[in-house]
Amino acid sequence: MKRPALTLKALGEDEIVRRLTRQLPLSGRTLVGAGDDCAVLGNGAGHQLFKTDCVTEHIHFLPETPPQKIGWKALCRCISDIAAMGGLPTEAVITIAAPKSTPWARLSGIYTGLRRASQRYGVGLVGGETSSLPEGAPLFISVAMLGSVEPRRLVLRSGGQPGDAVMVTGVLGGSIHGWHLNFLPRLHEARWLTQHFKPSAMMDLSDGPAQDLPRLATASQCGFDLYPTLLPRRRGATTEQALTDGEDYELLFTLPSKKRPALESAWKRQFPKLKLTMIGELNDGAAEEMSGWDHFAS
Amino acid sequence: MKRPALTLKALGEDEIVRRLTRQLPLSGRTLVGAGDDCAVLGNGAGHQLFKTDCVTEHIHFLPETPPQKIGWKALCRCISDIAAMGGLPTEAVITIAAPKSTPWARLSGIYTGLRRASQRYGVGLVGGETSSLPEGAPLFISVAMLGSVEPRRLVLRSGGQPGDAVMVTGVLGGSIHGWHLNFLPRLHEARWLTQHFKPSAMMDLSDGPAQDLPRLATASQCGFDLYPTLLPRRRGATTEQALTDGEDYELLFTLPSKKRPALESAWKRQFPKLKLTMIGELNDGAAEEMSGWDHFAS
Repeated sequence: MKRPALTLKALGEDEIVRRLTRQLPLSGRTLVGAGDDCAVLGNGAGHQLFKTDCVTEHIHFLPETPPQKIGWKALCRCISDIAAMGGLPTEAVITIAAPKSTPWARLSGIYTGLRRASQRYGVGLVGGETSSLPEGAPLFISVAMLGSVEPRRLVLRSGGQPGDAVMVTGVLGGSIHGWHLNFLPRLHEARWLTQHFKPSAMMDLSDGPAQDLPRLATASQCGFDLYPTLLPRRRGATTEQALTDGEDYELLFTLPSKKRPALESAWKRQFPKLKLTMIGELNDGAAEEMSGWDHFAS
Repeated sequence: MKRPALTLKALGEDEIVRRLTRQLPLSGRTLVGAGDDCAVLGNGAGHQLFKTDCVTEHIHFLPETPPQKIGWKALCRCISDIAAMGGLPTEAVITIAAPKSTPWARLSGIYTGLRRASQRYGVGLVGGETSSLPEGAPLFISVAMLGSVEPRRLVLRSGGQPGDAVMVTGVLGGSIHGWHLNFLPRLHEARWLTQHFKPSAMMDLSDGPAQDLPRLATASQCGFDLYPTLLPRRRGATTEQALTDGEDYELLFTLPSKKRPALESAWKRQFPKLKLTMIGELNDGAAEEMSGWDHFAS
């Protein structure tokens, strides 16, 4: 009897990524390959960051989503990843695949959103590709982005230590009601952090803390305690939603607990309108997976 | 009466790209933005090349295409673009979007092909992203690649001069019978050229000379003569197919006619198995569009 083929759904996103990234060839200047928010390439005086990400119709936006917001989101997702490494974005190239019947106004509107985000955050749009898709296929945008980061300000997922406080910016949950299309990547905040209170580990929250915190803890070879009642929730969002909705694009980072009081008071002066909340701690146990959003398993 | 919406099909690929790339923000170190095979970024001692490209099921490969060949093709298309600028590829990041029902073996096989190509041509695979697509949507792979090039060896599309000979490597047409999945990007050949007989302009042939030569001529502000009877044809291919099939991934380049005899005899010694053919000349007329393959108009 033939066994059914193993599908991506059965494996789940993290296992797919783990399997695919096991034996990748790296270049001589690769300091960090697949597995963090961005790759890190040694590049003379500074480090270079390199990242790709995509948004797909029906998954990340809908046919009726205003095109400018699609473009904004596509670019800002990559900026958020660059920010989470402590860096600044420099250039991006764009691939858009769409059926031939797509109205020009939609593509043009997407580029308006891409341009707005790139101008606001200082990213050069240096190239792109358009490709046709069969009729009925979902519109697809892939962004690849370069960034730069001073070696002393680079923050990986892997630097967390047992006892570190787990912090999160902003509020979580219910992003689907608008934030996921209009979010502001925490670039300025991350740069301020790496200058004044360098996190031991950091990533951006794209899948919700229930899925992303175990990733950070695993990369740091730590366990973690997450206190759901402490989670900062968007107006109307439940604790469950704050844990698992995802697409918050806030910063999730760790730092030694003894630095937390000084950080919190400095943060209030610097960013009075943006919450900063301790939601847990790293410990010396084993990281356990919590139920979160999985692109392939759900 | 409401006018029908202007679609991508009505505009055609070149007009879409022209419109989208008119007002893009550039970074301070951008030497060449959208419009050539790659972007060129000034980067201290050398220049950096940055390129994105994609392959899509039903357009660039079929459901029954062996997965390793899909991965090979996806990576080698970008390598071919880096080669056409005179550079060497350094790193790539990969985005694959696929329905959840995709067998793991297919994704894994695609990565085998990506790894083979990256090992053969010395490209680090430093990151990637997988994204789910609705059931029935075509599998989609986007590759972004970095390269490096010495400033003196950089070749753009725009440097051609009236009187320059138009040269092409290899044979053209009928790529669909296999070459488009198995092709060898002309990296070594392009590096040899930029070292010994630096072309005045160069690009890789992805859409066929009928469409690509006008692009090179337009970028060089020249007209051109193309001699169809001189076109080197793959076994079984007609002149029409050599002109318009595309996906040959050969080098199309120009150089002063007086250098041609020396180039041709040196080439024969260096690459005895690979044809090098003069197929036309640049002139001081206006570049005219020839009928070729247009991703959106056809």
